[in-house]
Formats: sequence, C-alpha cells, structure tokens
Amino acid sequence: VNAASPRFSVVAKSLASAIRRGVYRPGDRFPSLRQSSRTHRVALGTTLRAYAELEAWGLIEARVRSGYFVCAPRSASHQEPNRTKPSSQLTSVDVSELVFRLLDEIKGSEFLPLGSAFPSTELFPLDTLGRVAAAAARHLHPRCSLRDLPPGNIALRRAIAQRYWMAGCDVDPEDILITNGAMEAINLCLQAVVRAGDAVAIESPTFYGTLQAIERLQLRAVEIPTDPRTGIDVEALARSIRKHNVKACVLMSTFQNPLGSSMVDEQKRELIELLRRHAVPLIEDDVYAELYHSGVRPRPIKVFDQTGLVMHCGTFSKSLAPGYRIGWVAAGRFHEPVMRLKMMTSIATASLSQAALADYLRQFAFERHLRTLRSKLAAQLQGMTSAIGDSFPAGCRVTRPMGGYFLWIELPRKVDSLRLHTLAARERISLAPGPLFSAQRGYRNCVRLNFGHPWTSEMTHGVRTLGALIRSVS
Amino acid sequence: VNAASPRFSVVAKSLASAIRRGVYRPGDRFPSLRQSSRTHRVALGTTLRAYAELEAWGLIEARVRSGYFVCAPRSASHQEPNRTKPSSQLTSVDVSELVFRLLDEIKGSEFLPLGSAFPSTELFPLDTLGRVAAAAARHLHPRCSLRDLPPGNIALRRAIAQRYWMAGCDVDPEDILITNGAMEAINLCLQAVVRAGDAVAIESPTFYGTLQAIERLQLRAVEIPTDPRTGIDVEALARSIRKHNVKACVLMSTFQNPLGSSMVDEQKRELIELLRRHAVPLIEDDVYAELYHSGVRPRPIKVFDQTGLVMHCGTFSKSLAPGYRIGWVAAGRFHEPVMRLKMMTSIATASLSQAALADYLRQFAFERHLRTLRSKLAAQLQGMTSAIGDSFPAGCRVTRPMGGYFLWIELPRKVDSLRLHTLAARERISLAPGPLFSAQRGYRNCVRLNFGHPWTSEMTHGVRTLGALIRSVS
Repeated sequence: VNAASPRFSVVAKSLASAIRRGVYRPGDRFPSLRQSSRTHRVALGTTLRAYAELEAWGLIEARVRSGYFVCAPRSASHQEPNRTKPSSQLTSVDVSELVFRLLDEIKGSEFLPLGSAFPSTELFPLDTLGRVAAAAARHLHPRCSLRDLPPGNIALRRAIAQRYWMAGCDVDPEDILITNGAMEAINLCLQAVVRAGDAVAIESPTFYGTLQAIERLQLRAVEIPTDPRTGIDVEALARSIRKHNVKACVLMSTFQNPLGSSMVDEQKRELIELLRRHAVPLIEDDVYAELYHSGVRPRPIKVFDQTGLVMHCGTFSKSLAPGYRIGWVAAGRFHEPVMRLKMMTSIATASLSQAALADYLRQFAFERHLRTLRSKLAAQLQGMTSAIGDSFPAGCRVTRPMGGYFLWIELPRKVDSLRLHTLAARERISLAPGPLFSAQRGYRNCVRLNFGHPWTSEMTHGVRTLGALIRSVS
Repeated sequence: VNAASPRFSVVAKSLASAIRRGVYRPGDRFPSLRQSSRTHRVALGTTLRAYAELEAWGLIEARVRSGYFVCAPRSASHQEPNRTKPSSQLTSVDVSELVFRLLDEIKGSEFLPLGSAFPSTELFPLDTLGRVAAAAARHLHPRCSLRDLPPGNIALRRAIAQRYWMAGCDVDPEDILITNGAMEAINLCLQAVVRAGDAVAIESPTFYGTLQAIERLQLRAVEIPTDPRTGIDVEALARSIRKHNVKACVLMSTFQNPLGSSMVDEQKRELIELLRRHAVPLIEDDVYAELYHSGVRPRPIKVFDQTGLVMHCGTFSKSLAPGYRIGWVAAGRFHEPVMRLKMMTSIATASLSQAALADYLRQFAFERHLRTLRSKLAAQLQGMTSAIGDSFPAGCRVTRPMGGYFLWIELPRKVDSLRLHTLAARERISLAPGPLFSAQRGYRNCVRLNFGHPWTSEMTHGVRTLGALIRSVS
C-alpha cells in the first residue's frame, strides 16, 4: 500500500486486483458498498469514491436497484457500440431471400464458422446424452406416442418447471408446452395473437429467424432502439405502442441475439407494466438465458408478469442438446390456443427426444455441464475479444456481452458488410452481415460474429484475416 | 359339377370358391379373362359371363385398364354409401373449435377408441425400433445436428427414395425433405403455394386436420364430390377449377381419410392432365399408402406427374413408428420454397428420430412388418364389418375400404351424429362425427369409425352398443 495515495484510491486498487485475479469475474455481483466498507474498514463515502474509480476504469457497473456488477472485459482498443436508432416507422419485412442467399453461400463445414448461428457441437455432452437416449429408447412406453401428445412428456415438463422455479418464476408443469425447438414455439405464439398486417414491436437489430417469422405471417415490424448493454428502450417502445397499433412484442431480455444485451430488472418491471396497460402480449425469446458466463441466471421478464401476457420460449438446443429439437413455451393466458396451434402444425414432438432429455435432466449433472459450458464460452469470448482488439481497426466498436456466444461489431462507416461477407467467403470465413438483422435493412456497417467454437490458432488467424479485409475496404 | 348348370355358372362357382377359401383375397388382382379361360378350358365368352356373375355377386370388380380385382367383403345387410354431393360453393373454414371440443370430450384411455385418428400402438414393432434407436443414439455423429438440417438425414432420404422407386415413382434423395410428421409437411406445402383468401379444392368429406390447416391459413375450401370407392370426381374438380380460382388441391389418392376410397390410375392420369392445364399444384397426402390390406401398393398420383406440380407427403407414423414424428415431402418444383419454410418454421427435424428410422429401414425387415400389419388390419376390418352387419340398423351404409383403418358409415337420415357422439361418450365409446370432416358442416348423419385396434370382445360389445344407440335415435 502506497501511503501517499488517498485512501479511496488504495481501496479501489485493492478491489481492482480482486477482479484481475478472477476472485470476481465478469457478471458476478460485486460486494455492496456497505460490505466493502466493512472489509476495508473505511467510511462509506470512501468506498463510494473507490467504486466511482472502478466504474471509470470500466471494471464494474451499477445496475438500478440491483447493486454493482463486474463488467465484461474491455477490448483494449475498441469502445462499445451506442444505442441503436432505427426509424420508428412500420416496415413490412422482406429479409428471407437475403438470409437464404447468404446462408447458401457459406454452406459447408470448410468455412470458419464466425457467421454461424449455432455453437460448436463439441460444447455439449453428446456421449452422455447418447447413452441416456439409448436407455430411454429401450424403455419407451408403448403408448408414449399418445401420452406425449401436446402438451408433451410430463417428466420433461416437470424438469422444466423445476428450472423455472430455480429462476424465480412460478410456472407449473401444466403451463408448459413442448415444441420442436424454440423456433416452432415462437411461430406458434405469434400465430396465436396476430393476424396478417398487424404491427409487431421488436428490438433493433433483431435475430433474422424472428424477422422471417414476421415476414411469413405478413406482419409489419416496428424496430425499437436497443442498447447493446441494457437491451430494448422501454420508453421508445411505449412511444411506438402509442403511435402504432402494436399487437405483440417479441424480444430477448437476456443475451439478445445479436447484441448480447441484457435488460435490468427495473426495466423488465417497467416493460411489464407498459404491456399490461396496453394489453400487448409479449413473446419472450429466452433461448440464451442459461449461457451467462458467470454470476447468476438473469431473471426472465415472465418473473414479473402477473397477468399472463408473457409467452416465455426456451430450448435445450443452446444449452444441452442440439439436434434433439426440444423447445418449449410457457404461454400464460395463451397456453390453450398455442397448444391447439401446435397440434394443427405438427401434431406432437418426438417422444424419444422428449424422454431422453427428461431422463438426462433427472439423472445427470446438468448444472455441472452448464458450469463447464459457461466457462468455455467466457474463455472463447476472451479469445475473440483480444484477437479483435489486436487486429480490427480502431474505429470499430465491439459489444461486451455477459453471456451467449455472439459479438456485434460496428465497423467503420465506409465498410459494407455484404461486400465484406463476399470477400470473407473467398477466404473461407463466414460472418453474419448487419442487414440480416433489420427489417429496414439497416446496420450495413455491422457484423455478428460467433464465439461459440473452441478458440484455436485457426480462429485467431481468421479474425486477423477479417481485420485485414476490413482495413482494405475502410 | 352339376351337369344341369350352364357352363359359365359352373366356372363362376368355382372361381367364387377360390375367393371364399382365401386363395384370392380382397384387393388381390384376379386372374385375367384369358388366364381363367385357359384354367377352366372354356371359351373366352363363357369366362366373360362367369366374371359378370362374380361382379353381380360383389366378389370382384373391373378397374379401368387394370383388370379385375377381388372386392372387400360386403356386410350382409349394408350397402355402400353413394358418391357425396357437397355444394360447389367456396366456404371459409371454421371447424377447429368443434374438432377440439369433441376431442376434449373423448380424451383419456378409458374410451373405446372408435373415434381415434390413430391406430393401436400394439401394431408396431416398438421393441425392435427401441433397440435400433438405442444403437443409433450411442453412435450419433457429433455434428449430426448440423448435417441433418433440412433437407435432412441423407441415409433416411435414400431409404425413402428406395420406397418411391419400388412404388414406380422417380424421386431422388435430393427431392425429399424430412419433416416433423406429414402434418408439418402438408402445412408447409400449403404455405408455399397459397395466400390468405385463396381457394383450395378438397375431397368431401376430408380429414379435419387438413380442414384445420386450411382454416389456420385463412383459405377458402371448395368441396368436391367424392366416391367412397374411387375417390375424388375429377370432372367435378375440373368444373370447380373453372368456376373458382383454385390455387391448390389437397387430396388423398389412396385410402382416403375418412372414406377409404382409392383412385384408379386412369383418373390419376386425368387429374394430372387437368392440374397441368390449369397449373394448379397438388398436395398429395399419401399417409395410408402402405396400409393396403392385400394386393400391391397403389401408385401415388406423383407417378404420373411430369411437371413437378405434385407435392407428395408421406410418413412413418402410420406404418412403422408413431411417436418418432418422421414425415417427409417430395415437393417437386416447390422443393426449395418448402424447404425454406421448414427452416423458418421449426429449423430441423430431430436427428435421433431420423437416424433411428434410417437404421431400421436399412437393417430390418420393414416389408415383413408391413405384411403382418396389413393382415392384422384386414382381420380387424373383417371383425368390425361383421359386428356392424349384426347390430347396425338396415338403413345404414358402410364403406368397404381396401386399406387404411377407417370405416365411414352413413346412418339413417334422422340420426344426428353429434348427438350420437354425446350418447356414445356416456357409454365410454368414442366416434368421429361427420361434421368434423366438412367445411360445410355436412355429413350430419355420418360417422367415422377406427378399426386400427385389435379386435376384442370389448370391441364387438362396443359396436353393438353403438348399434343400439343408433336404433334408439333413428
């Protein structure tokens, strides 16, 4: 301790070292002011100044009514993107053609999968799952094809209800409908509450799968400004709801795809109050919720829902079992109509997939797998962030997600991400250009990169190549 | 041989005894006139008169350009229903509420499942499938969740292409898309070719799942007269296509649900020519094709399609593996748009289900299982037909399907099948009332009965109870 330093500075440095040594990791709740004051035996005012220093250094952040949290590591050279500013107009959606054209161009395993929507299959306990599925297959009940008709396998629904319970959310097994992945769930939810021509509010940018669902149902989208840290701008949403006759809202409260943003609880409360006031149903696409890199599971918006307006969609495809195609929805007051639509759309979800996951969740250490998965994702994020820091030009802005496996990067204004896509494809590198994520075809100078794959020297090399390409077109 | 009988009569009796002794069974191709003439050493004219006798007795029937076939056994006391006569108007469909209300009323395994849409799970080799699935689960390729993205598992698509080949239909593995059951396939096909408000031609009566798909997409239905033996009236369809701007046709060429009708090849050819002339796409729902009780597999309409207008939908849910939720579509010129819709709807079909069925089809005796299944269904049909013959009043008309597991019964005019449904439910017997099968809510005095369950004394008793209920309300 340097006696010449003011007291608050000494405390700040001590706290910073705890973060640097990994005692507290990104996303962890940081000790409260009172706790730190006791630990360092200093006055509350001194701790407050120390915390202000840590905030200025970008190590922690205060969240309204939630206390302090450790920030995601900053890339040395890049700032975060600002809140987005889409037009507040209604837009009919026509993105599918572009999505499929670009996806076709990067088909095949020989591409470095930075543009992929999927995480590496190596992240999942596929051998264990296979053994559990094998046992389940040998003991499938002869009448399971009838028993597992919607709402679905009861053991699986119980296991999901338990996870809701742990997340602080009162959802009973009877409130859950098993679907063919979350994509089917989101489609069914939309169909349950909107008609062709209706306005749907979404984050901007938003996952292209959601845009395609909106396009398919001939709806119109209202893109809402969204902050790369804290998610959708609830006040802007309120304005859009007043301006347009918004019939539903689709959003991702946690680790939004592509921004990685997560709403704070206070905003979730405000959102719920807003939706309740206007009776607007919310489809909460919460497929990345289990992929927080550290700390605790962020709470779904549904936790705050008293009136059943929230249709909460989840999946095991991102956290446990890609390829098993098991998702679900807790659709609140829309449970019955959504279930009927499920029966009309695909009748049922495969019994074997349902039984295998129900057995895995009952028998095996899902939590242990998730801990490993989360720390791998955190390490991969670290790898990609630092490779980007080393090789992307200074004008870039890079998100700092606390979970999931996507980075959103704002490139220098001049860069056309569709052109960059073509150039990168020639180098056998895929990326997801910004216009895929907007009904308005905005975000021309943005890309989404996937860090859901093991960090290898090939990856570092790929990011470097991408950096060079960006410089060449900047 | 009674010397007093004319020669043709002797030949007729001899042939009839071959049918009665089971040498030739219902659905079997009967020897040609020439063959029989040689066998009995009589002139062709004599054989012709003998065959006319057999036709008059209802033992055989001539099919245009196909020769003679053994008829399904006739119930002693009941005639077949006549060709249906729906109104030729466009009807907006609103049947879902009724479907779900009635299905809710007969939920639970304690009902005698005469109203069920599913066959008994006992008919399927679930143990063998379970063992194959178990082996498949242990050896799933780690990247299968990516490899099995649409169009789907290649080994499974090859196995399906082989079955097309055997049915005389040129469909390559590349033309096939794996879906979550045939219901998803039919929904995707409809979405690919129609928009809200469009007119779709269907058989009358038609499966309520198809009606619900039409309702969900806000289409309008044109019901076409349909013959309980030979299926849709192609001339009437031609008139409707000319009258209404029909954008698609959905039908079941083989063992139609609920009528059990099967089109003859000549009509399939005419239908294809009609559709080609008007460029109307056809969704051929062919889920019962493997369930012919004897003889050979009827040919799908797709066999005759030269222009890619036919989207042929199949499934293993009825023939092999209920609960695995594996269907497919060979969508011809619509393959690409249907595949894109699949990705937008549910992304993919579960890998494990696909792998398990692919392995089963490669390793095991699917054909042997099918032979057993077919003869069980034929026996169950016999059981139900004779129980109905014994206990239903004389005014009833009963179909004589050559495959599948549904009987369609026209009750005396006075009988209201919805009321009968309620009365039967009190006796713990389910049935499917006629109005479920019509956009126009016709067929009020009709019911569909399911003979896809082992024939037990409970079943006989149930049919008798039903007969008594019908008499009580006639």
